[in-house]
Amino acid sequence: MSRFFSAKYAALTPYVPGEQPRDMQYLKLNTNESPYPPIPAVVEAAREEAARANLYSDPTALALRQAVGARYGVSPDEVIAVNGSDEALNFAFMAFCDDRRPAVFPDITYGFYPVFARLNGVPYEEIPLRDDFTVDPEDYAARPGKTVFLANPNAPTGIFLPLAAVERIAASDPARVVVVDEAYVDFGGESALSLVPRYQNLLVVRTFSKSRSLAGARIGFAVGQAALIADLETIRNSTNPYNVNRMTLAMGKASLENDAVNMQNCETVAAVRDQTAEALRSLGFDVTDSSANFLFARHPAIGGDTLYRKLKARGILVRHFSLPRIRDYNRITVGTAEQMKTFTAAVREILEDPS
Amino acid sequence: MSRFFSAKYAALTPYVPGEQPRDMQYLKLNTNESPYPPIPAVVEAAREEAARANLYSDPTALALRQAVGARYGVSPDEVIAVNGSDEALNFAFMAFCDDRRPAVFPDITYGFYPVFARLNGVPYEEIPLRDDFTVDPEDYAARPGKTVFLANPNAPTGIFLPLAAVERIAASDPARVVVVDEAYVDFGGESALSLVPRYQNLLVVRTFSKSRSLAGARIGFAVGQAALIADLETIRNSTNPYNVNRMTLAMGKASLENDAVNMQNCETVAAVRDQTAEALRSLGFDVTDSSANFLFARHPAIGGDTLYRKLKARGILVRHFSLPRIRDYNRITVGTAEQMKTFTAAVREILEDPS
Repeated sequence: MSRFFSAKYAALTPYVPGEQPRDMQYLKLNTNESPYPPIPAVVEAAREEAARANLYSDPTALALRQAVGARYGVSPDEVIAVNGSDEALNFAFMAFCDDRRPAVFPDITYGFYPVFARLNGVPYEEIPLRDDFTVDPEDYAARPGKTVFLANPNAPTGIFLPLAAVERIAASDPARVVVVDEAYVDFGGESALSLVPRYQNLLVVRTFSKSRSLAGARIGFAVGQAALIADLETIRNSTNPYNVNRMTLAMGKASLENDAVNMQNCETVAAVRDQTAEALRSLGFDVTDSSANFLFARHPAIGGDTLYRKLKARGILVRHFSLPRIRDYNRITVGTAEQMKTFTAAVREILEDPS
Repeated sequence: MSRFFSAKYAALTPYVPGEQPRDMQYLKLNTNESPYPPIPAVVEAAREEAARANLYSDPTALALRQAVGARYGVSPDEVIAVNGSDEALNFAFMAFCDDRRPAVFPDITYGFYPVFARLNGVPYEEIPLRDDFTVDPEDYAARPGKTVFLANPNAPTGIFLPLAAVERIAASDPARVVVVDEAYVDFGGESALSLVPRYQNLLVVRTFSKSRSLAGARIGFAVGQAALIADLETIRNSTNPYNVNRMTLAMGKASLENDAVNMQNCETVAAVRDQTAEALRSLGFDVTDSSANFLFARHPAIGGDTLYRKLKARGILVRHFSLPRIRDYNRITVGTAEQMKTFTAAVREILEDPS
């Protein structure tokens, strides 16, 4: 830290993204990326726009918002386009939280929520998940006036909270915003988008990173009633009106125009996920019931960190979190069927050789 | 505004980017874009990376920071990569300003500075430029403890503040940060990068938007001593660690590897700028001495807004600002020689037909 750094941020601990080591080629099952590259139409859209990159991107992202609107049956003014869904989450912490509206979210969830809260000077409460890692909606209904952040399916557990429970939380206090972060919903959850027409206080955050193979393009969006979206637009236009670049806007639009391919890929990943979960269970693992593109698993005979390190030594990266409640677990991204066979074979070897 | 919007931001007036009308094709001389498209190697880099966009971009932007380092003779840990230079400016307002360190900048300058100050709850003082629109460095030396933001060359005047004056401000108070926003420096200014080794408090912000034909790719960087950059990295990693996407990182690197083409384009633009300034002066305009890729001009016989509207009716967009001190002026982006002939011919017609 330099002597110039504001005391406001002196205690800030940044979010730590999954490791991207350079020492060798790994089978990367640690950052929940899609194993499938973008389709040719998406790549071609990037090339076309790169050739015009001397001109600013559309600061209103209109074509993309129209494409999202057409795909999900909402109006473009109910959609904001962002530089990855993290940006929408940060904007929501800025717009809908403050000293009088603290944030509330589970103790085990996406690790960026407490970082955004601290960045924005927002008080926050972490509510313990039940012992089985499920969310009790009554915990949130019992805290009116607090802005709710829920990843659904949750990370890193993969567990999906049924829509009726999401609705219970949204309905419990119409005067506070409920943000549903659906980064993984295309792999098996049910989207709260259908609730948006009935709840002025509901914001649904989505990303192209996982289900549409565009993590490296940085594109997300959020959907809510127009007044809520207008607030986020005020923040966006006071921060970086050209937040999404030309190539990415066009790639997102092309991706939505070919969305059947993406959704087919999600079905394949979900099938491989379920096969892999079964294989892990047959090896003695506890595996949560995941609706996402990753598995969350622990084994009674080997610590989470030990398994992580032994896999890494074999060239396989998974994600281990050192939080006390989950340090016995690893989060394993679901790749192709072949990659997951390599993974389960390595796990079997490790379990058979406990040295 | 929704009833959920935080009172913190209720009075926020967003920055208004130059208009991007859809009603017809305009000769766009209003957003300071380059008239030259990116070179083929840059477009090809985008295509290659788009094909891998299922994988996250490098959250450390190492290859780009190394390329910047090689180009400017600095170390990669003295460089931060950002999603357009606006992001670096916002990070600097966050990191280096607060209630005890107000911001200070000229009354006539980049319109985003007061927006960033208000967004971050930072008090600020606007210091009037001299009557000839030049900066008096003693105004800033006389305000120790205030974080300085200087666009150099300044916008929308185009006037360059000599490096000795920048150094005078940086040296006047080593305990406060001086941010030099050099978006336009490649068109005729002299960069303060040479001062960075001697001033711990100096941050130089640059962009690929104008001089490297990449406005639509969203790429900028800032250079300062490592401790200052580390502060900005803390903010970046608490906001959006994957802030720059894969295509843009590769385009920036390819652009720097072919930088002679970019710098040649800048020389061409500067020559066309000087010819256009001469043509406008011969038509009776007052034209400031611009070192940027735009001109700032007023005519005694026609109001700034009137000229703006008459040019727009002829299919030519320039930028008019309604601030009292400059409302007689227009800011005119310098395009190709042919585009500027079209522009000056239209201006001549308008002046000859005052109806």
